[in-house]
Amino acid sequence: MTDRLIIALAQMNQLVGALEANAEAMLEVRRKAAGADLILYPELQLTGYPPEDLVLKPEFVRRTMEATERLVDATSEPGPAMLFGTVIAEDGASYNAMVLANDGKILGRTLKHELPNYGTFDEKRIFAAGPLPSPLEYEGVKIGVPICEDIWWDAACNNLANEGAELLLVPNGSPYELDKDQIRQKMVRARTLGTGLPMVYLNRVGGQDELVFDGSSFVVHPDGEVIVQMADWEEALILTEWRREAGGWCCATKERDELDGYPEDIYHAMMLGLRDYVQRNGFPGVILGLSGGIDSALSAAVAVDALGADKVWGVMMPSKYTSEESLEDARENARMLGCRHDVIPIIPAVQAFDEMLPDLKGVAAENVQARLRMVTLMALSNAEGQMLLTTGNKSEMSVGYATLYGDMAGGYSVLKDAYKTTVFALSKWRNSNKPSGALGPDGPVMPERVITKPPTAELRPGQKDQDTLPPYSVLDPILEGLVDKEMSVKEVALATGSDVALISNIERMLLRAEYKRRQAPPGVKIGARNFGRDRRYPISNFFRTGA
Amino acid sequence: MTDRLIIALAQMNQLVGALEANAEAMLEVRRKAAGADLILYPELQLTGYPPEDLVLKPEFVRRTMEATERLVDATSEPGPAMLFGTVIAEDGASYNAMVLANDGKILGRTLKHELPNYGTFDEKRIFAAGPLPSPLEYEGVKIGVPICEDIWWDAACNNLANEGAELLLVPNGSPYELDKDQIRQKMVRARTLGTGLPMVYLNRVGGQDELVFDGSSFVVHPDGEVIVQMADWEEALILTEWRREAGGWCCATKERDELDGYPEDIYHAMMLGLRDYVQRNGFPGVILGLSGGIDSALSAAVAVDALGADKVWGVMMPSKYTSEESLEDARENARMLGCRHDVIPIIPAVQAFDEMLPDLKGVAAENVQARLRMVTLMALSNAEGQMLLTTGNKSEMSVGYATLYGDMAGGYSVLKDAYKTTVFALSKWRNSNKPSGALGPDGPVMPERVITKPPTAELRPGQKDQDTLPPYSVLDPILEGLVDKEMSVKEVALATGSDVALISNIERMLLRAEYKRRQAPPGVKIGARNFGRDRRYPISNFFRTGA
Repeated sequence: MTDRLIIALAQMNQLVGALEANAEAMLEVRRKAAGADLILYPELQLTGYPPEDLVLKPEFVRRTMEATERLVDATSEPGPAMLFGTVIAEDGASYNAMVLANDGKILGRTLKHELPNYGTFDEKRIFAAGPLPSPLEYEGVKIGVPICEDIWWDAACNNLANEGAELLLVPNGSPYELDKDQIRQKMVRARTLGTGLPMVYLNRVGGQDELVFDGSSFVVHPDGEVIVQMADWEEALILTEWRREAGGWCCATKERDELDGYPEDIYHAMMLGLRDYVQRNGFPGVILGLSGGIDSALSAAVAVDALGADKVWGVMMPSKYTSEESLEDARENARMLGCRHDVIPIIPAVQAFDEMLPDLKGVAAENVQARLRMVTLMALSNAEGQMLLTTGNKSEMSVGYATLYGDMAGGYSVLKDAYKTTVFALSKWRNSNKPSGALGPDGPVMPERVITKPPTAELRPGQKDQDTLPPYSVLDPILEGLVDKEMSVKEVALATGSDVALISNIERMLLRAEYKRRQAPPGVKIGARNFGRDRRYPISNFFRTGA
Repeated sequence: MTDRLIIALAQMNQLVGALEANAEAMLEVRRKAAGADLILYPELQLTGYPPEDLVLKPEFVRRTMEATERLVDATSEPGPAMLFGTVIAEDGASYNAMVLANDGKILGRTLKHELPNYGTFDEKRIFAAGPLPSPLEYEGVKIGVPICEDIWWDAACNNLANEGAELLLVPNGSPYELDKDQIRQKMVRARTLGTGLPMVYLNRVGGQDELVFDGSSFVVHPDGEVIVQMADWEEALILTEWRREAGGWCCATKERDELDGYPEDIYHAMMLGLRDYVQRNGFPGVILGLSGGIDSALSAAVAVDALGADKVWGVMMPSKYTSEESLEDARENARMLGCRHDVIPIIPAVQAFDEMLPDLKGVAAENVQARLRMVTLMALSNAEGQMLLTTGNKSEMSVGYATLYGDMAGGYSVLKDAYKTTVFALSKWRNSNKPSGALGPDGPVMPERVITKPPTAELRPGQKDQDTLPPYSVLDPILEGLVDKEMSVKEVALATGSDVALISNIERMLLRAEYKRRQAPPGVKIGARNFGRDRRYPISNFFRTGA
């Protein structure tokens, strides 16, 4: 029975489905952690998280079991014992599991007991629930290994404490959301106070489709003190020293990285989400329509910061309604970012459609322009390989103020879950700050005028967003109430002070636009309820809380 | 304690979220069933099914509870007792429930015990599971009311039998799938044999986004005999007479409607799915590109049969690669269907892009044509209101043989879940048969040549699908193995006899096209695993079972 343990915490990225590559990366980190007794990896690190319906393919589970065996075998090489996440199949059921392996043998395992099945999570769909976990034993120390959701309820931790666990090592796959780090720490403190046990909260880092994992792993003592705080937004390995003292196990390693505040955390989430999506899907870079407006300017800035200016291509596609100001702003924007910039007028194509469909007017004619820009961008994307970056924001997506197969088109969207007021906040912030790890300019990323001028789609003379929509400072709190908080029209009126008739109208627009959102590209989740797997509304839907 | 019961079975359609309209329709059917003692409605008939995340909005649940009370009150009017599906909220949880009401009072209720959370179902996300159900009592008769999924496992039925249930009335919301009627009957027979109790299996009818409910309700005696078989694909009300005999309750009403065989059932599913989607979403009709090919010809036929020829508008959009044969076939196709037909060459727009992007070639140039057709169709759709009908099939969607924002664009797809070989089978069948309820021509719906000529996208000279893809008779069984049956490459090779290298290549195309499918419109589910809510794969995914 040892009185001292060196526990390595591996805050890692991953590749979903890449069993070999993930295993190799895990062994590489193990080699780096040579001085540790034990190394802890994030939830389902071997398969990548979330594996979604891959788990329903029997061959995926078989190969995961084989890869697990190979990892266990690898622990016969010198180095720390491995405590890692994988899928275990038994009696026809698949479990989200943690395996403790040393000297080529499995010493124990935990099966996840609480399966999250809300928000973006579908774990009851793909996994069976394990029993309440019991502690694993390593070098005579009883270690509790509840898995992610297991600690959001008290049964698993209490059971571990009752069965004599001396410390809790918790692997997670906890996606970023605004203020999530504070929510996690509050919850972990409640659990440490409840059990009287110290807890390691290890999270992964990196993007996977709509989700971004922020890392931000930490260690908390039973009194609620945060002893170790690892960085957010980057891979990290830390060796923590633990000692058995009179009152129980204590972490002697004190290290505190600063976590991002608002809105830097959102900006970092966007950078990481985009970078991992583009790289994993094999694109050499991105292309986007640079209109001189704030959405495309911010999207371009995130892209340049995430990928580098040489990987970003902005195309200005003027029509007869494009103002000189917009042309200038787009050009200046590209210059500030240092990215490739082309101007391709869509006027010849618009004229061809005037000839083909001479009677077109109103919104039908406006949409033709937005769609011809898409045809242009997708042609360039198809010819040269860059992924089209969509620039729409959550306010537009909510009310359908966007053209399907027009400006909505693209492979990925960084602003998808950001309301327009957040777009303003991020743009102002980035113009006077440079986030860590950013590859873009030290100075401002867009002309000041892009932030201050009134938003317009420029699809007809003198058009402004606010001709059709209320000011974003009024619209966004209404949308947040209806979408993110699932309030009724009346509840939103009480919370925001806005007029019931206005809110009812917004609700109608919101629910009517469901068909558009169903065909929108994926994008970075930053709020509690994104328009991806988070919010599953029917398209054919007659329910309204308002008139 | 009565010895005779008249039980009305209401095989109804619904509107998701339309609490008032659904309640009114239920009361209307109750008035028609005046001679019955009891009327049984489908699962969640008051809210519509599946309600999806509407259940997560507290105001939706509150209003559903209020509407439930009003329905209960309405049973103080003369007429049968009502046994109907609704949501019940208690102690912070929502239940999928059946309520038995008579004389203005609730006599009892069942809460759904088994919540389906696989395939397209997400019930563990939105509902809490009720306890094992106990029988309800009506006129001294003990009636078991397991709800849909409850009868796919034996615990609920066994518990009801053990607690003295005399017959089982089962409300369902069971979506159509190929051969589902036989699967249901086999399962119900097992349950009646197991419990020794007769069972009423009541299903709804109608389309809801991707799902189509086929009705096909039936009554089975404990010996497994099907006593009553209601029609598929239409609303129906039947009063069944039940008598208590020495061996238990028997259904004295014998009535057997014929159910559709293959492929008529698929055709009916497509008709109903499209009709309900178009009507519920307020479209005056549909518009589609009529290319002279089999996919658009079949889609147009389904649309004409579902909506009437005056609601369907076919547009032929020739380019310089369009053959005289295709022009003729499209024209003749429209003539046979009696629908509006326009020819709008896209040549001016293609020339404009030749001028704007002179270096474009290969797939990039081909895609421009497909996208300019979309711009044309969407302009007409936006101008006149018809919904764009997408014409792609499941074979194309699987391997990504379709242009995103081009031929993939549209509000709804009837062929989305039909492999190309099924498209051929349906076309041949419809050309010599007219389905019941169809509004289209009695005779053939497309020129014979449309079925016999080799498929082509006509995006370059002499192009044929089979230049890029294996023959559909080889491709489709491979896809069915990989997608619908979740087999590995090796398993598919064993099952189909196709070459491992070919299957590996198809698997790569399949997984790489995930990003396209994520932006595809909804369409009628007909198989076990559609590309909608049924199959939830990551886009960024490194797993391959083949090379």
